[in-house]
Amino acid sequence: MTTPLRWVPVAEIRRALDGIDDPVTRTRAFAGLTRINILYMVTRAGSGHLGSSMSAADVVSWLYLNELREPGTDTGDLYFSSKGHDAPGLYAALIGIGLLDEDLVHRLRRIDGLPGHPDVHTPHMPFNTGSLGMGIAKAKGVILADRLLGTRRRVFVLTGDGELQEGQNWESLASAAHRDMGELTVVVDHNKIQSDTWVADVNDLGDLAAKFASFGWAVLRCDGNDVAALQETCRERAESYPDRPAVIIADTVKGAGCRTFAATSMGADEWRYLFHSGAPSPADYASAHAELVTAAEEILQAAGLAPLTLTEAAPADPKPASTGPRLPEVYGEALVAKAATDDRIVAFDADLVLDTGLIPFSQAYPDRFVECGIAEQDMVSMAGGLAYRGLLPFVHSFSCFLHARPNEQIYNNATEGRKVVYVGSLAGLLPAAPGHSHQAVRDVSALGAVPDLVVLEPANAAETRAAVDFCVATPLSVYLRLVTAPVPASVDALGAEPLELGRGRVLRAGGPVVAIGSGPTVLGELLGAAELLAADGVDLTVVELPWLNRVDPQWLTDLAERAEQLIVVENHFVRGGQADVLARTLAELRLTDPPAFRGIGITEVPRCGTPAEALHAHGLSAAQLADAVRAEVAGKSEPGPFDVTLRH
Amino acid sequence: MTTPLRWVPVAEIRRALDGIDDPVTRTRAFAGLTRINILYMVTRAGSGHLGSSMSAADVVSWLYLNELREPGTDTGDLYFSSKGHDAPGLYAALIGIGLLDEDLVHRLRRIDGLPGHPDVHTPHMPFNTGSLGMGIAKAKGVILADRLLGTRRRVFVLTGDGELQEGQNWESLASAAHRDMGELTVVVDHNKIQSDTWVADVNDLGDLAAKFASFGWAVLRCDGNDVAALQETCRERAESYPDRPAVIIADTVKGAGCRTFAATSMGADEWRYLFHSGAPSPADYASAHAELVTAAEEILQAAGLAPLTLTEAAPADPKPASTGPRLPEVYGEALVAKAATDDRIVAFDADLVLDTGLIPFSQAYPDRFVECGIAEQDMVSMAGGLAYRGLLPFVHSFSCFLHARPNEQIYNNATEGRKVVYVGSLAGLLPAAPGHSHQAVRDVSALGAVPDLVVLEPANAAETRAAVDFCVATPLSVYLRLVTAPVPASVDALGAEPLELGRGRVLRAGGPVVAIGSGPTVLGELLGAAELLAADGVDLTVVELPWLNRVDPQWLTDLAERAEQLIVVENHFVRGGQADVLARTLAELRLTDPPAFRGIGITEVPRCGTPAEALHAHGLSAAQLADAVRAEVAGKSEPGPFDVTLRH
Repeated sequence: MTTPLRWVPVAEIRRALDGIDDPVTRTRAFAGLTRINILYMVTRAGSGHLGSSMSAADVVSWLYLNELREPGTDTGDLYFSSKGHDAPGLYAALIGIGLLDEDLVHRLRRIDGLPGHPDVHTPHMPFNTGSLGMGIAKAKGVILADRLLGTRRRVFVLTGDGELQEGQNWESLASAAHRDMGELTVVVDHNKIQSDTWVADVNDLGDLAAKFASFGWAVLRCDGNDVAALQETCRERAESYPDRPAVIIADTVKGAGCRTFAATSMGADEWRYLFHSGAPSPADYASAHAELVTAAEEILQAAGLAPLTLTEAAPADPKPASTGPRLPEVYGEALVAKAATDDRIVAFDADLVLDTGLIPFSQAYPDRFVECGIAEQDMVSMAGGLAYRGLLPFVHSFSCFLHARPNEQIYNNATEGRKVVYVGSLAGLLPAAPGHSHQAVRDVSALGAVPDLVVLEPANAAETRAAVDFCVATPLSVYLRLVTAPVPASVDALGAEPLELGRGRVLRAGGPVVAIGSGPTVLGELLGAAELLAADGVDLTVVELPWLNRVDPQWLTDLAERAEQLIVVENHFVRGGQADVLARTLAELRLTDPPAFRGIGITEVPRCGTPAEALHAHGLSAAQLADAVRAEVAGKSEPGPFDVTLRH
Repeated sequence: MTTPLRWVPVAEIRRALDGIDDPVTRTRAFAGLTRINILYMVTRAGSGHLGSSMSAADVVSWLYLNELREPGTDTGDLYFSSKGHDAPGLYAALIGIGLLDEDLVHRLRRIDGLPGHPDVHTPHMPFNTGSLGMGIAKAKGVILADRLLGTRRRVFVLTGDGELQEGQNWESLASAAHRDMGELTVVVDHNKIQSDTWVADVNDLGDLAAKFASFGWAVLRCDGNDVAALQETCRERAESYPDRPAVIIADTVKGAGCRTFAATSMGADEWRYLFHSGAPSPADYASAHAELVTAAEEILQAAGLAPLTLTEAAPADPKPASTGPRLPEVYGEALVAKAATDDRIVAFDADLVLDTGLIPFSQAYPDRFVECGIAEQDMVSMAGGLAYRGLLPFVHSFSCFLHARPNEQIYNNATEGRKVVYVGSLAGLLPAAPGHSHQAVRDVSALGAVPDLVVLEPANAAETRAAVDFCVATPLSVYLRLVTAPVPASVDALGAEPLELGRGRVLRAGGPVVAIGSGPTVLGELLGAAELLAADGVDLTVVELPWLNRVDPQWLTDLAERAEQLIVVENHFVRGGQADVLARTLAELRLTDPPAFRGIGITEVPRCGTPAEALHAHGLSAAQLADAVRAEVAGKSEPGPFDVTLRH
């Protein structure tokens, strides 16, 4: 049964804004109504960042309603969120003041809707954020440009507190002071909780005010959920420090605004905050909605306004069943088992202990679990130091961050011949709801040429366990590419065979039209395509090659000799992945009668949406793959595009 | 005429150490003798970091002679340099105390000798440094491992002061305090000058002591060229803060120890320090040597020891002539010219204004020149912010750093559709003297799949000017890969043709054996190989394709149809570069009679040495390429190895 959802139409928000004069009360009313819509949007989307959207709602409301001059114009004051994890809150505010279309309230995390993290394709989003730590630098770039162009305006950047663990923030501070950037105000949404748990437990920020001050910044601090305090602090910032960059440390509560989500409601024995991302349960939705409506009504009533009229939403599409195993969880259990007999194993995490499957490990081996916070470069180099002493580090983050942020550090470890296992979860196109900052489809390219490092993508639970065995046994470093989306039943049923470097296995024996791929997403769609093709009399052979930057020449020779067509399908950009490796190797094998070759992969920046929306948008659904194979067989396919492009 | 060089044999150093009891005097003598050998080593090598080696010499000497317990043993106190730019000084000290072979004094920056930056293949180098900012994290990893292994020892890390601009340092500090790492001492060689000029002018560090203190570290400070002060400060560090990580800010003078190199000798009108890297002139060598010997003799004499006996060195190999143009200089001039008519152009630099050819630009357009310091991530994201406002940022650093450190930031800019031109100098294998931290041979792979970004490597001066035109005119982002080694005359004489995306040109028309490459190094060697082959009757066709991640399918079809053999030669690892792109495209073209394909590239972590040594070590010399072509023609070549490996 679908729980009915309710939201605040813009006309109602407008009525509140028009009916209240006092800026503090007006902002409180706006923030309260915004929170109702945040709850609606995230619940309807099935995932999203509730906690941060709620903690930052008062700051965002104050800035847009009172502080920003001409927001949404080309040269008006600019605001953006560096962390981007408060996107629902930002969207709700912009919808409320008319800068985004009202209809978008229903399309969070859907294709052509509002991405899970901010993206420049959405109006009034100057930057793509969600990758952390870049915002202050981007703001400085805007200010440098403004100065050259003769524009005078202010730039406000919201950061998280956990986000401040990223080194790039500290790189950025000094030159803002050096260049007297009075235009720049950073607001820290200091809600004390990062992705998993308390910032102080992950990697304590210490004396945050002293830190900013030591980098030459003016420092102000206030209760960031107290609108009157925000008013006063913004006034002081402008009047007291016109020529200096300033930080406002806004002490907030994660999930502020209702007891259901507020971190202050956490019990003494609860270590993990449950509303960082994901959707609330129906019961939590109901209690939170009731609380938020009551709070908003109180403000409206005190201002002499009539009660709220909410709109009931058309029910959201039911969520697709997702019953298959999730590989990070399987991986985490396998690592625990392995560590029982190998005390060299040490696990490093970058504030994603839940999403990387490490909670069991952290509890089983607390001495061999190193929580690094959001500091991937530090984590990777620490792992290198540990490996120098003969221990075996397993380093974890989302793939999107792990392959790119510490890219030079991974290479540096490799040039030292240190064995490190890098485990990236959330690899590939799916889930597509968080948006492209979290969709790792360039990782094989970015790490493929690291010396003595092999990229391995297991397809299912059994193969994930085999992959952990391989990672421990091999002298090579490994980048273990873990898809987080549930494994399709057809792929999980395949079990595993012993992993041999560079060699794959036939999953579906068929004719001379051969499709190769790796991982649950591609293999699930390919097996589906094979079923569709069978009806047309095309007996597709489906081959798994879980090694993405290596192939055994003899294995490829054997495969190629019985193939007329070789079609490589990648959950990755078309450039720099498995298809390039196979084409290159095939070319150098110089077979007398090589198979026709075709690579199919992602050619545009990944789209946000449901799994089905994203697969279809990038041509990777079973039906589209079947069509592609038909075109190959008919000799009617067109090569390319070989190039990765931005969506226009 | 070769200037005779003189150095201090280990027996003489031993005599001083054995003959002096007072630790301060003994250390001063050792540091003085070490400096003579630093000067010898750098002068003989033809390049090297004099200034930092001299500034840190007293710190290094004090630590090795007095502070480190059992240095050079597996569990003794550990010292390493995070910046690695003081490698000659570290080597000289280790030679002096017998931890490195005496013969190595003659082999700085030579193959199988002492690399330009520390490398684990040299005894007692625990880490590869030279890429900045990783040392504190690595030390923390060692300490975590020591704690798990039950080892008790201290770890000392030397950092530069410019190095502290790197964000990774600040990522690393908090958890060291959080984990009470009393084992860890960081010494900042605070010589106030980074690669180009004064730290305070590049990106002021501000109140360095307050910064470290705000991250929870104990802070001590002393004159780092005063041995007695170092003694007292190390004592205080150990006694006062046994359970906290501590930083010793060692105020030093760059080039300390003789007036010739000391920054204190700079005139009021000199903005650039001249002895950061490179070799001294014969006159500077002579005056510095005389000064250093006099200073050392005074210490020995005061201690009642006999005068020094120096050894005259066998003359160094003459430096190979390097008269060709250097592309960063040509580039810099072209950018100045372009900026005269396009005021959107803004140049960003990361403390390499000399080496990236930007001095003319910085002087011509000071308002459009942004010196970022050693903060590549900050720089790249700032450029993204600038591009948001419609300006055109050109972002500069060494290729080795630019493709890797801000890898995620480059991708982020690309996903926003912002056009940015990334200009990496010092690309490829040569010069090989600095060692692999500075040899960018993985850059095409790491950036090849960035959306709407094209990798372009010009071959000579004329093409570099054309490349600047292309960078401005194209809607795409560009990674401009600039080789810094002088352009061979044979390549410079080729001039340029208009650049067309994905299309190359025939440099030497010949028969159906076709070699393809890009850039001055590869093309110079290939033209040389063609001459060698002509004597055997093989008429090699040499083709330039300056586009490293794109090829026009029609152009490739035309080329392939007249080729029997296609041999791609890369100044890059074998994986993820131009050969993969060409093989992939060729495979998808499905020609009826495709040419035999072979890729030749770098298969091991690049070696340090002279240009000839490095080219030979990696099989890229003209003679070796001629042999490879002969093997192809004879059908006797072996494929691969396709994998990039560490040198064992």
